[in-house]
Amino acid sequence: MESVMNCAEEQQPSSMTNLWSNKQEPSRTQKAKGGFVLVHAGAGYHSESKAKEYKHVCKRACQRAVDQLKAGALAVEAVAAALVELEDSPFTNAGMGSNLNLSGEIECDASIMDGKSLHFGAVGAISGIKNPVLVANCLLKEGQKGKLSAGRIPPCFLVGRGARDWAVSHGIPSCPSEKMATKFSLSAYKRNKRKMELAERMDAGHNQTKKRRQSNENENGSGCLDTVGAVVVDLEGNVAAAVSSGGLAMKHPGRIGQAAHYGCGCWAENACNINSYSTAVSTSGCGEHLIRTMLARECSAAMQSEDAHQALLEAMQNKFISSPFLASEDRVLGGVIVLRCCTCVEAQSSQNIQGILVEFLWSHTTESMCVGYMSVQDSKAKTHISRLPSGTVPGQSLAIEGGVCRLGVTE
Amino acid sequence: MESVMNCAEEQQPSSMTNLWSNKQEPSRTQKAKGGFVLVHAGAGYHSESKAKEYKHVCKRACQRAVDQLKAGALAVEAVAAALVELEDSPFTNAGMGSNLNLSGEIECDASIMDGKSLHFGAVGAISGIKNPVLVANCLLKEGQKGKLSAGRIPPCFLVGRGARDWAVSHGIPSCPSEKMATKFSLSAYKRNKRKMELAERMDAGHNQTKKRRQSNENENGSGCLDTVGAVVVDLEGNVAAAVSSGGLAMKHPGRIGQAAHYGCGCWAENACNINSYSTAVSTSGCGEHLIRTMLARECSAAMQSEDAHQALLEAMQNKFISSPFLASEDRVLGGVIVLRCCTCVEAQSSQNIQGILVEFLWSHTTESMCVGYMSVQDSKAKTHISRLPSGTVPGQSLAIEGGVCRLGVTE
Repeated sequence: MESVMNCAEEQQPSSMTNLWSNKQEPSRTQKAKGGFVLVHAGAGYHSESKAKEYKHVCKRACQRAVDQLKAGALAVEAVAAALVELEDSPFTNAGMGSNLNLSGEIECDASIMDGKSLHFGAVGAISGIKNPVLVANCLLKEGQKGKLSAGRIPPCFLVGRGARDWAVSHGIPSCPSEKMATKFSLSAYKRNKRKMELAERMDAGHNQTKKRRQSNENENGSGCLDTVGAVVVDLEGNVAAAVSSGGLAMKHPGRIGQAAHYGCGCWAENACNINSYSTAVSTSGCGEHLIRTMLARECSAAMQSEDAHQALLEAMQNKFISSPFLASEDRVLGGVIVLRCCTCVEAQSSQNIQGILVEFLWSHTTESMCVGYMSVQDSKAKTHISRLPSGTVPGQSLAIEGGVCRLGVTE
Repeated sequence: MESVMNCAEEQQPSSMTNLWSNKQEPSRTQKAKGGFVLVHAGAGYHSESKAKEYKHVCKRACQRAVDQLKAGALAVEAVAAALVELEDSPFTNAGMGSNLNLSGEIECDASIMDGKSLHFGAVGAISGIKNPVLVANCLLKEGQKGKLSAGRIPPCFLVGRGARDWAVSHGIPSCPSEKMATKFSLSAYKRNKRKMELAERMDAGHNQTKKRRQSNENENGSGCLDTVGAVVVDLEGNVAAAVSSGGLAMKHPGRIGQAAHYGCGCWAENACNINSYSTAVSTSGCGEHLIRTMLARECSAAMQSEDAHQALLEAMQNKFISSPFLASEDRVLGGVIVLRCCTCVEAQSSQNIQGILVEFLWSHTTESMCVGYMSVQDSKAKTHISRLPSGTVPGQSLAIEGGVCRLGVTE
């Protein structure tokens, strides 16, 4: 197994590394108005033309989160805002333009986690809702309010029609399913359906016992795993993470992927007496692989080690590619975005500057992964398509990149 | 916070401790025909009259698993057989006789994990299927077969109508929902509905901001959390775990509890180069608490420590009752059953006896928990209602008990 190291830490754009010496002198009231966002538009395969669209939507999503942070929102609100933008793009496999399932319907998964309260909300296989992440966020908020009438415990995870009905009763408007399909998702469905029928006709000619393994294993490559997600830290050091997905193309109706699954699609934990760092993770890729390895939580736990880059590399190799939970899989497809933060104080001239050191990373075993990132001090987001070097095998190799940024407040 | 220690290790029934010196001399072919099962019929509150029924069903469930083990079945098949018996009882909150949801419907969750292959299958919010665990087991098996046509990855978690349709297309018969409700579950629904309406009318008279917290917090006590589950080890040392639940009474339609959630409802992992012990766990209690603490997986991980009893006690205290994930909860309600096993060789007379040392434990923060256990060498199962001592507070205290048994094979 080969591992590919593309560490971008040293090629960090100057506007990021210069944040620390930013000439602005933010006042106390600005403390709650800083922050940083990292988004992804999926680990999969991005052609050059597709890459452009993905970069655009990542840029807009970063801007939405930063707008929220500038308005004083907490990390969890900013991360939800970024997700809405990513879901609204017809190019991503989330919300509008999601993959169609075996019956030609759209069923979405989404979840959100608040590192401050450690509350979580998730929806699975939900239809007819334009922004599934808003339902997940509403479940999170309702969970924070405490018990329902007659001492009932509020749900944190709702699926199917029950989830849609709950959303509508909580003021989230429904959206006709046919409006969520795009020309692209409909034609992909027809193409996939033909492929499947062809594969099944070919299989029928073979020995029944060999049927399953002989099917074209490359068909479900990394071309259609473009789940979206984001991780945010606000200037109070609160982290949050979210993820949203239309799921695998041609999935069985009712199938739940990692995007709805606690510990698998996203994770966020503020620093506490046990953990030195605040961490936030969002994943993308083959849902079943990400569920069975609980990749979001594993990466978050790994981030408590001293060297974030090395810890993520080891987590991706040992807890994902070589995981005993996926021993029978020949190609393990996925990607993660990760934030880890700690507070730091530095003396500069006559002032003590207290700030947050943010390390941000992404890693993937798919051919490519599209990310965007932005701090509140930036005028616009940076976007990047990370790629496995040519000649390496998706699902068996990995790429890892990242950077560092400091969010400072003058004492 | 008070912790209650009721260690039953030293009061172990003699038939259990004597297993090791059993006069039978099993032949090589019997190696795959031994094993041990531990089942639970829920952590909650069991009145004396209710206790009798629960003990009966636990006894029958143990017998079903042992019948399977005697016939040479692997742990995963034996655990599924135990669950079917537990689901079929109209007294348990799983399968037949499950709690009704807010709309008066039955929606079940179930999952199963095989410690040998580490595969997992789960169904959530499934209606009209008598034995949800059989659908979970079928998903597990289909997952083990590898990819579907056109390289599609088989699902490990299905919900709602999609789950039911999948089950029926895989030969699992549907069952009219009205046949799954019992006189008891229907009258409990009517009673709960009245209570809820009354609580809401009372709440309406109060300040809106106080409404949620003022609702009768004791109503959703530990009376209705009787999820069922089982853990099994076969004589090859393979472990398996399963869990099944009708969910909380009056839950919102589409609500998923821990019984369908990976890492939360059940966990099973054979010993490997990283883990010295094989472990299997099944949980019961308030689904949201068990999801947010990932209690099954946490208890399994803790079981790699030297002292199983101490490790489970610490896991229940630190990872459940005092978990930072449930900081805002005043009462944390749940229970677990745990197996941990390792192979051992002992010289007796002129023979080396190779066997499996099985430690079995249960712990709960609810008022009571009903368990049953049996080894293949036993003529019948033992059952027990574990209770918190009077005066302790459910959700803040815990009870822990267990025993040891050796499964031997002459070399």
